[in-house]
Amino acid sequence: MATVKLLTDAEVEAIPIAKAVFDDIRATRKSDFVNNFWRGLANDPVLLKRTWEDLKAVMAGEGALDPLVREMIYIAVSTANGCQYCVHSHTAAARAKGMTDAQYGELLAVIGLAGKTNHLVTAMQIPADPEFLVKS
Amino acid sequence: MATVKLLTDAEVEAIPIAKAVFDDIRATRKSDFVNNFWRGLANDPVLLKRTWEDLKAVMAGEGALDPLVREMIYIAVSTANGCQYCVHSHTAAARAKGMTDAQYGELLAVIGLAGKTNHLVTAMQIPADPEFLVKS
Amino acid sequence: MATVKLLTDAEVEAIPIAKAVFDDIRATRKSDFVNNFWRGLANDPVLLKRTWEDLKAVMAGEGALDPLVREMIYIAVSTANGCQYCVHSHTAAARAKGMTDAQYGELLAVIGLAGKTNHLVTAMQIPADPEFLVKS
Amino acid sequence: MATVKLLTDAEVEAIPIAKAVFDDIRATRKSDFVNNFWRGLANDPVLLKRTWEDLKAVMAGEGALDPLVREMIYIAVSTANGCQYCVHSHTAAARAKGMTDAQYGELLAVIGLAGKTNHLVTAMQIPADPEFLVKS
Amino acid sequence: MATVKLLTDAEVEAIPIAKAVFDDIRATRKSDFVNNFWRGLANDPVLLKRTWEDLKAVMAGEGALDPLVREMIYIAVSTANGCQYCVHSHTAAARAKGMTDAQYGELLAVIGLAGKTNHLVTAMQIPADPEFLVKS
Amino acid sequence: MATVKLLTDAEVEAIPIAKAVFDDIRATRKSDFVNNFWRGLANDPVLLKRTWEDLKAVMAGEGALDPLVREMIYIAVSTANGCQYCVHSHTAAARAKGMTDAQYGELLAVIGLAGKTNHLVTAMQIPADPEFLVKS
Repeated sequence: MATVKLLTDAEVEAIPIAKAVFDDIRATRKSDFVNNFWRGLANDPVLLKRTWEDLKAVMAGEGALDPLVREMIYIAVSTANGCQYCVHSHTAAARAKGMTDAQYGELLAVIGLAGKTNHLVTAMQIPADPEFLVKS
Repeated sequence: MATVKLLTDAEVEAIPIAKAVFDDIRATRKSDFVNNFWRGLANDPVLLKRTWEDLKAVMAGEGALDPLVREMIYIAVSTANGCQYCVHSHTAAARAKGMTDAQYGELLAVIGLAGKTNHLVTAMQIPADPEFLVKS
Repeated sequence: MATVKLLTDAEVEAIPIAKAVFDDIRATRKSDFVNNFWRGLANDPVLLKRTWEDLKAVMAGEGALDPLVREMIYIAVSTANGCQYCVHSHTAAARAKGMTDAQYGELLAVIGLAGKTNHLVTAMQIPADPEFLVKS
Repeated sequence: MATVKLLTDAEVEAIPIAKAVFDDIRATRKSDFVNNFWRGLANDPVLLKRTWEDLKAVMAGEGALDPLVREMIYIAVSTANGCQYCVHSHTAAARAKGMTDAQYGELLAVIGLAGKTNHLVTAMQIPADPEFLVKS
Repeated sequence: MATVKLLTDAEVEAIPIAKAVFDDIRATRKSDFVNNFWRGLANDPVLLKRTWEDLKAVMAGEGALDPLVREMIYIAVSTANGCQYCVHSHTAAARAKGMTDAQYGELLAVIGLAGKTNHLVTAMQIPADPEFLVKS
Repeated sequence: MATVKLLTDAEVEAIPIAKAVFDDIRATRKSDFVNNFWRGLANDPVLLKRTWEDLKAVMAGEGALDPLVREMIYIAVSTANGCQYCVHSHTAAARAKGMTDAQYGELLAVIGLAGKTNHLVTAMQIPADPEFLVKS
């Protein structure tokens, strides 16, 4: 149903750049599972490599934000953009990182509230209060 | 520049429902400052009241998510929806709640990455992996 | 296929807050049918209750706008936001409230036209005419 | 501030196709005022003509929907798409067609509510109930 | 699964305006295949006719942009708007017009990059440099 | 007006990673002008560096798509996402790369048409024709 072929492991095996990325995905995630997004991107090995390196740098490892918080921010953006696959994959990732039902309920509540006030603000074209602006 | 008049304190004073909401905003936030969003909504006191009660319930007080995390999720949704005022107001709120430059940098990195992969996924119409689906 | 379990009537029965909301949905709509949206929200009974009360206050009962007009506005927003479920559910609701084929055709025509001019305006970054601005 | 020059009446005068459209806008609206959108489009007279004819056919004259209802649907789409100019221009148009404060308040309430539930539905990826689907 | 019936050739045969449009689609495309979009629009023959004429004028025939480039721009907009059907249909159209795998890979790369920087810019609310503005 | 300080050349001078990126932007573009987007990103030198490298790889140099075509695709995505700054900056870039008025007019026509049909398709929830699907 995709606009591209989702490459199988056998097909990826024949593309050295893609093979190296798939190996790194498996090593980084400590799992043999490679999801469809990467199988679609593998049709363009350079784009696959750059996208994985970007995602690995931002989402994996230590940082100022807890990995679970990063996943919840990802869900928030994906929801507002209406990306079904991304909502599914990052909700699964957040759960795998320990998101509780209570945390998920609050995430939904904030997303819903923001959706509401974003629309109200845009409909009324509210100008920014001077208090909010950064001096530059 | 708004599509509605932004009511002054004097004008709000004359609308009992709106006045009560403004008092509660000030008491809840422990600040005399009431931002333009509420001054626009005050034209419809019932909508103002319902919106404030919703926001107060979701964003203020204890919860499963840290108040700063809730603000960052709010920024994420507002960015994806292109709501300028909301981006300004919630970035200011996040800073007031202690968001560090490092946390803000990571928030931007996740938002940018999600923007990128959301578009790639949608362009390729990647179908959800069965592994992501909740059994219901 | 949802990211949450869609609760059955039996499961809702065991959650008093959710049960009360489902009873009110059925009483308000004079129908035994409770659609999936509420079954998903029932996982977080407080969010369910707040959302239903909001929807009931805005969409049901008397008002300055005809209930059918409110449904058509809902369809318009849901379309622009790309919410498939919402488009389906509110189109069904509009039909149940008497939307004729001619009205639906005009609704589609306005939605399509707005989609077109919204894009043209944004691409050209047209500034607002002073004539459109509210004095505040 | 636009990406194109906003043509003056004198400049439009020199472009026959554009001049004819401006004349028809003035005749149709019974007003000498031609707003910036058309002045930007006038750089491409064929696009200007096709867009005006489309808008005139959909928004002016008799139809199954009241002209004011059509404007409110336009505002709804423009808000969800974040088109500032369109929100301003169609809110002004709706007011010119008699939109009352109570009607505008309800319009905002529906837009805000739809924004909220659109986001909740997308975040939960609720599947369409079979009851909503048209048999084809 | 649509909100409207997708009309069969037999049903279209009975609607003169729709029949004429279907004939023109087939003649213009030199193919007997008429895709679902037109079968849905055929429920409102006037909207069908106006939409087809618009599409034919913009997408078919000679112009300043190569027809394949026009399809790629169409894919870009459809992706950002999250229109699944449009992404599928215009990707198929671009392939039919000779889009190579390398071109498609670059199209995806630009779409993904734009998605990323669009989000970063909006999150930071970067003001336009004076150098970018057109004098008007 | 941004949510971050837009760093001056003097401030960037003191941040080695950012300084190196600014030098490369100037060398790549053969111009001393560095636009505000990079000055905002410079607050997070790592994000700046990664974003510039991504943009340089995708937009500069030889490729399967003409650099001007890539800019027009960028404008298309930025328009649909409502990113004002991006629309301004990439329209200026397209003009600098030789975009003619006729090409720009067609770009606008395609963007507007896609905006229209995207909305019509989503409103009618048209299912993909089997003919459009890639076998995988």
